[in-house]
Amino acid sequence: MTSALPVPAALDDVPAAVESVLAAFFDRAVPVAADIDPQVGAAAEVVRDFVLQGGKRVRPTFAYAGWLAGRTAASGPSPADDADPGRPDSPDDSDALRVATSLELVQACALIHDDIIDRSDTRRGRMTVHRDFERRHRADGWAGDPGHHGVAAAILMGDLALAWADDLVHGHAPGDSAIGPPPRPLPAPVGRVWSSMRTEVLGGQYLDIVNEAGGDESVDAAYRVMQFKTAAYTVARPLELGATLASAPPTLISDLRSVGHDLGIAFQLRDDLLGVFGDPERTGKPSGDDLVAGKRTALLAIGLARAADRDPGVAARLRDAIGRPLTDDEVGSARAILVDVGAVDEIEQRITTLLESALATLEGAGLPSPIRAELTGFAHRIAHRST
Amino acid sequence: MTSALPVPAALDDVPAAVESVLAAFFDRAVPVAADIDPQVGAAAEVVRDFVLQGGKRVRPTFAYAGWLAGRTAASGPSPADDADPGRPDSPDDSDALRVATSLELVQACALIHDDIIDRSDTRRGRMTVHRDFERRHRADGWAGDPGHHGVAAAILMGDLALAWADDLVHGHAPGDSAIGPPPRPLPAPVGRVWSSMRTEVLGGQYLDIVNEAGGDESVDAAYRVMQFKTAAYTVARPLELGATLASAPPTLISDLRSVGHDLGIAFQLRDDLLGVFGDPERTGKPSGDDLVAGKRTALLAIGLARAADRDPGVAARLRDAIGRPLTDDEVGSARAILVDVGAVDEIEQRITTLLESALATLEGAGLPSPIRAELTGFAHRIAHRST
Repeated sequence: MTSALPVPAALDDVPAAVESVLAAFFDRAVPVAADIDPQVGAAAEVVRDFVLQGGKRVRPTFAYAGWLAGRTAASGPSPADDADPGRPDSPDDSDALRVATSLELVQACALIHDDIIDRSDTRRGRMTVHRDFERRHRADGWAGDPGHHGVAAAILMGDLALAWADDLVHGHAPGDSAIGPPPRPLPAPVGRVWSSMRTEVLGGQYLDIVNEAGGDESVDAAYRVMQFKTAAYTVARPLELGATLASAPPTLISDLRSVGHDLGIAFQLRDDLLGVFGDPERTGKPSGDDLVAGKRTALLAIGLARAADRDPGVAARLRDAIGRPLTDDEVGSARAILVDVGAVDEIEQRITTLLESALATLEGAGLPSPIRAELTGFAHRIAHRST
Repeated sequence: MTSALPVPAALDDVPAAVESVLAAFFDRAVPVAADIDPQVGAAAEVVRDFVLQGGKRVRPTFAYAGWLAGRTAASGPSPADDADPGRPDSPDDSDALRVATSLELVQACALIHDDIIDRSDTRRGRMTVHRDFERRHRADGWAGDPGHHGVAAAILMGDLALAWADDLVHGHAPGDSAIGPPPRPLPAPVGRVWSSMRTEVLGGQYLDIVNEAGGDESVDAAYRVMQFKTAAYTVARPLELGATLASAPPTLISDLRSVGHDLGIAFQLRDDLLGVFGDPERTGKPSGDDLVAGKRTALLAIGLARAADRDPGVAARLRDAIGRPLTDDEVGSARAILVDVGAVDEIEQRITTLLESALATLEGAGLPSPIRAELTGFAHRIAHRST
């Protein structure tokens, strides 16, 4: 189904290409849902709009970067060993684009379900999916608890996104039974990366809620969540997914995983800073959102540890600003503590160190200049983004 | 990973064989989860225990029946067209068993999430998964709302079961990177059945909650939910999945879908009767469970329509017994109305007609005697089960 779509020539072109594949996917999937019942079609449109309306497409971009890097360095057995003998050629750019795009459907499930778990009302400046279903329930004057209905509908639509992610990565779209070239089966090593990634992100999300409930404020706990929920899922596994599809040599895959780990942690540390200090106009999230939500980030863990070393009263004031609604003054005061105790500087320093480590690994990976330069530029943008 | 496991010789042996595959899968998956963090390992054990502790394994049995029927009648292009050239043989019994078993992991997700949606406290006589996580939260004296934590944890563990279903159907287990024969890629036509089935069941579940919220009491609405949530998902698609894996001829696949539709509706109608009249000791559900839960079943739709025809007061009394806690006397009174207005007779008659239709299609499908006899016996048991 993706054979006729334009493939990206450079990493900057990946988000637009991914959105084309997503649009083509939903052009198939929504009518199939509507054939079950118009109500189901309308719900599938909610998922479609959620997926198409935004996001930085970071994961597909890393996956496509892994593909480009792996392709330039490919050696060893051909991935066609696992492919349909009817299409004896190796995976091509359109296969890589399709696999990369599938990550956005996993992410749709993760976000829809995370927003239920975090009780979030908005995302990207819009109503979250469960709140949207709750609003529809009220608007239609239905029976029962609108809030519970919204959660129930969003659980099911998140599940649908996760099922569709697996369909797309394997080359299926719902109802796609007769048109287009036969889907090329995913090479087994790619399937294993896909499998590991999904278990890791769900395990990381679970660990996140357990740490929060268990009150584990340690930096170690925050790092463990980052390692699985973000670093592996957002950067390392996507890079590996693309490189594995390209049958990259094991040394390159190992280098890309190391780059992915460093950049993934840097990505999350930047996210931590944006979650407290970010501009709501740019991030689409309320001011001080992570404080209000009570997220156990590394920034807060370091801030609490440093504040406790200095003055238990300061630590108590910071802790008091975690996990409850805050006035602008209270957000400002918590921010000042994080700056004063040096937590912000420490996070910035860690980001710099991680970025340097990633760039050094990239430098030594023996990649040809164009893709190395692209990855270097992308790494800088990931570490220093403001949205 | 399943190559060393015993394959079932007859349909009656399928549940035990499925449980062996599930146990082998969790022997791999739980340590992988525990490697993320012991807390994640403990949560994976909750999923494992939920999956292994019970269930009739109806869906895998139908899938394996489809495989056996398809294999005896196979013709046309070999499914090995899509298979790994390193394993040039066609799918074998162990592949069929693995594909059939994957359905139990889809079902685990469906049940875990359904129990959140239905706010159910027990299933199969045990605490539901979200209630179990809620209990653990309380026992550990964690912070926050135990009920919300239970829901959050169960959402994520249901997601994990769904992701694992896709891993298993494609021949992967988490962390399975080096041992066993290389997984045989799923033939593309099987992948399409798998894809359709997941969209249908999630669409059917969504339609179910919408009908309930929208107060659609019609028999049509109840049938539409049955068609997708039960008939397709529980019987028709599993039969088709197995038969497609066996490269059965299209006429047989079409016959099996017809059988599946009839038996699937009969299965759900029997479920409707058990949900109101079932013995709690045998069903593991409280007496009159569907009444209390307010399920919009065909039994209730027909009961309400017939009661309204006869006497609006009777219809009002029946409607009053739907969707709230009931005393034993109130359950008894609602049961009496359903019997008196003839709704129970009508459902029994419909089950008989559907069973006859399924058996006639089976008779005409040209299957050899052993598998035809097995399927016939299984059809009778499905239509007349008491648990």
